[in-house]
Amino acid sequence: MKLNCDLGESYGAWQMGQDDLVMPLIDMANVACGFHAADPMVIRHTLVLAAQHKVEIGAHPSYHDLPGFGRRSIYHTPDEIEALMLYQLGALEGMCRSEGLAVSYVKPHGALNNDMMKDKDTLAAVMKAVRTFREGLPLMIPVTLGYREHQALAENLGVPLLLEAFADRAYDDQGQLVSRRQAGAVHEDPELIVKQALSFARQGGVTSATGKWLDLPADSLCVHGDNEAALEAVRAIRTALGKAA
Amino acid sequence: MKLNCDLGESYGAWQMGQDDLVMPLIDMANVACGFHAADPMVIRHTLVLAAQHKVEIGAHPSYHDLPGFGRRSIYHTPDEIEALMLYQLGALEGMCRSEGLAVSYVKPHGALNNDMMKDKDTLAAVMKAVRTFREGLPLMIPVTLGYREHQALAENLGVPLLLEAFADRAYDDQGQLVSRRQAGAVHEDPELIVKQALSFARQGGVTSATGKWLDLPADSLCVHGDNEAALEAVRAIRTALGKAA
Amino acid sequence: MKLNCDLGESYGAWQMGQDDLVMPLIDMANVACGFHAADPMVIRHTLVLAAQHKVEIGAHPSYHDLPGFGRRSIYHTPDEIEALMLYQLGALEGMCRSEGLAVSYVKPHGALNNDMMKDKDTLAAVMKAVRTFREGLPLMIPVTLGYREHQALAENLGVPLLLEAFADRAYDDQGQLVSRRQAGAVHEDPELIVKQALSFARQGGVTSATGKWLDLPADSLCVHGDNEAALEAVRAIRTALGKAA
Amino acid sequence: MKLNCDLGESYGAWQMGQDDLVMPLIDMANVACGFHAADPMVIRHTLVLAAQHKVEIGAHPSYHDLPGFGRRSIYHTPDEIEALMLYQLGALEGMCRSEGLAVSYVKPHGALNNDMMKDKDTLAAVMKAVRTFREGLPLMIPVTLGYREHQALAENLGVPLLLEAFADRAYDDQGQLVSRRQAGAVHEDPELIVKQALSFARQGGVTSATGKWLDLPADSLCVHGDNEAALEAVRAIRTALGKAA
Repeated sequence: MKLNCDLGESYGAWQMGQDDLVMPLIDMANVACGFHAADPMVIRHTLVLAAQHKVEIGAHPSYHDLPGFGRRSIYHTPDEIEALMLYQLGALEGMCRSEGLAVSYVKPHGALNNDMMKDKDTLAAVMKAVRTFREGLPLMIPVTLGYREHQALAENLGVPLLLEAFADRAYDDQGQLVSRRQAGAVHEDPELIVKQALSFARQGGVTSATGKWLDLPADSLCVHGDNEAALEAVRAIRTALGKAA
Repeated sequence: MKLNCDLGESYGAWQMGQDDLVMPLIDMANVACGFHAADPMVIRHTLVLAAQHKVEIGAHPSYHDLPGFGRRSIYHTPDEIEALMLYQLGALEGMCRSEGLAVSYVKPHGALNNDMMKDKDTLAAVMKAVRTFREGLPLMIPVTLGYREHQALAENLGVPLLLEAFADRAYDDQGQLVSRRQAGAVHEDPELIVKQALSFARQGGVTSATGKWLDLPADSLCVHGDNEAALEAVRAIRTALGKAA
Repeated sequence: MKLNCDLGESYGAWQMGQDDLVMPLIDMANVACGFHAADPMVIRHTLVLAAQHKVEIGAHPSYHDLPGFGRRSIYHTPDEIEALMLYQLGALEGMCRSEGLAVSYVKPHGALNNDMMKDKDTLAAVMKAVRTFREGLPLMIPVTLGYREHQALAENLGVPLLLEAFADRAYDDQGQLVSRRQAGAVHEDPELIVKQALSFARQGGVTSATGKWLDLPADSLCVHGDNEAALEAVRAIRTALGKAA
Repeated sequence: MKLNCDLGESYGAWQMGQDDLVMPLIDMANVACGFHAADPMVIRHTLVLAAQHKVEIGAHPSYHDLPGFGRRSIYHTPDEIEALMLYQLGALEGMCRSEGLAVSYVKPHGALNNDMMKDKDTLAAVMKAVRTFREGLPLMIPVTLGYREHQALAENLGVPLLLEAFADRAYDDQGQLVSRRQAGAVHEDPELIVKQALSFARQGGVTSATGKWLDLPADSLCVHGDNEAALEAVRAIRTALGKAA
């Protein structure tokens, strides 16, 4: 079970996150590509850090929306989705060359991620872009109860799929994350977070907020490095999963 | 003697240039990479058009300055130059993949082009970025009387060089373009333009505004497609050079 | 019946519209405020032109979306709507000072205009911003069959309302513009355009695409200056309405 | 002797500074206007905070350069300077209306500030914009040995001048700040900072880094709130100047 984290989200004079503290604790870095965050120097700094810690590089493409940090849905045609994906994947890959690295998977960011999980045409456009960019390059998407359908679409379009789960978020009975606007949506208790991480890693699923068991096979857990509590949770997950701390 | 032209300089709802009219008349298209002009859909449209007419794709990277169209000098460290070059080269190469194309040379745009011709550290940073991006990828720079020095630097850094000349611009005695602010800087007379194109193609140089002969070996002539007069000049140059019109 | 037109929509090196040709033909100029188009120099140029032709200045605020030209809906809270309105109204008013002008009405642009006509909270936020900016400053909105409700809301919030109609667009039975994706949505026939302009001016309404009469009292007609046909239509409307041509 | 501070420099999801901690300690807030930092919601938040603490609102306009945070010199004609100043002053004034506030002075930011102190045409353009915006509105500029010349120019153009000094920066013999690249440019010792603040407040000048006395009459001291040490220095200055802590 690999740990992934969104990184490289500073921009110009603005700092975000604690990349240097979380990078040593993760396996996969989802690196912003300049459309919701990150300028070329921020990307380079993130890549150098990832190389030091032998962390895999994931492209983290987004709608072009710096003021909204890529969190606002903006209508795009499938053609536009493909174009903005290829642009950002290429940009990150171009920057990888100076560090002897390569993009090894793709995880869309924010509203683009949400929209592709709601709209099949958008998801297909995302998959086509990843397939066009490089054969065998995997796309990471959130695991939901509809994962078999997503796998079928991905297989059909020739894209390997990585399924992502969250240790610190409650799931509803449909296997969707409980909205952050609802109480109990985010687990604060480190024990609960570790327990959920182990459930995904050992049982291949999780118990929903109402107590229903959900089969949700995951390849990677999304973790955060925003503050000390988040870092502490990542360390606890590593220990529980038997990873070097 | 190949003809190159700056293209793909629309942005969103804003149209610029007449790419569809000039593309059939050129050999090399300098494609904007999103920093001074062009969004992903504009780039795609330009690449499709270039593929139709079997025109070579050149990356046309720039300082990040949409409001100033990349024409304003903005201080960057050599590291920043390298990073912004790699980002843009990668982005364009990423977009090339959907059309089965590849970036086949690099020509910096506007103020970045001017600055690299004035400052050796900037030029070296540009060359390093091109070399890092792909071995054997050529950099196109304006030919001046200092071209041997530029060639030496390029050879030292392992970058093939393409030298570019202008058929429609007057040259001063140092082999620099006469500033547009001076009278006679831009040739309007089609006969004069054709004569200068032939001079570069057949004699390997040009006569300066004051009548001095300048040895300026050029691989490519920069042409324009902004209006009918510009297109007419390109057609006349093609005919004079024995290219299919 | 006044004629209004969207103007000042160039940006940096990118030209849009033919402001110099249409300005002499209109009464009210909806001036872009920098969020979907226009930089400070474009705004100044537009204001100077408006002053020459004694055309009223309307603020034409938008979502902040240069790549999408303000045509894409982006979710904003009412607070965010108010803030972006006040910023843009102030910016335009600031620029008016050098020409001895003032903003004399407000007409939201593109997706913001569409969204406020669909969502009452957004419309209320727009109205509050206009009222906060200056007592007595009118808001221009499209006239629909719901115009009395809009008037009531405006009166309640202390904002004078201007109702806008289109001479060149077909109306459906609800008094909404027929979608551009449908055939017959845009009138091309100058005679039809003039007839519809006269209908709004003399009969206070229009016949819908299906032949139903709609009471739609309008204060202003929206015209365009994009091409010669559009300019010709404006001249014909002026003549029909008895305005100096 | 008033204390001023640059504030409101967050942008979208990116936080910068500790506005809530420093606002209670200052008299004048230089509020970013959206060109180097601040979106409309950030501006509103800053204005609300300023109103709570009865702090004067200064416009802090800049070159349009978010990725460079307004710190990079970009060539502008005097006309362009005037236009970008009026746009930003108006935008901030527009936003002030919802809080019952008004812009009470103007202090250019970063590279624009540096450039106006080096180039008289730029300074005159800045002054003209401030004068055009509102009669009697003061411009704040750094005090140097050339301050009488600046005062003469300002008087000539009808703009009141406020002179600004720094308690935590060393001055060279010409009354310029010692470059940050030199050792000793920034005072770290709180006692030295307080001593220099008192020197400006009581003696109307400061001793240069080489020990030469400089007559530099200042209306306001620029302070910072970036970290606890900076806040501590502001508190010490307040106490020394007899202001409520």
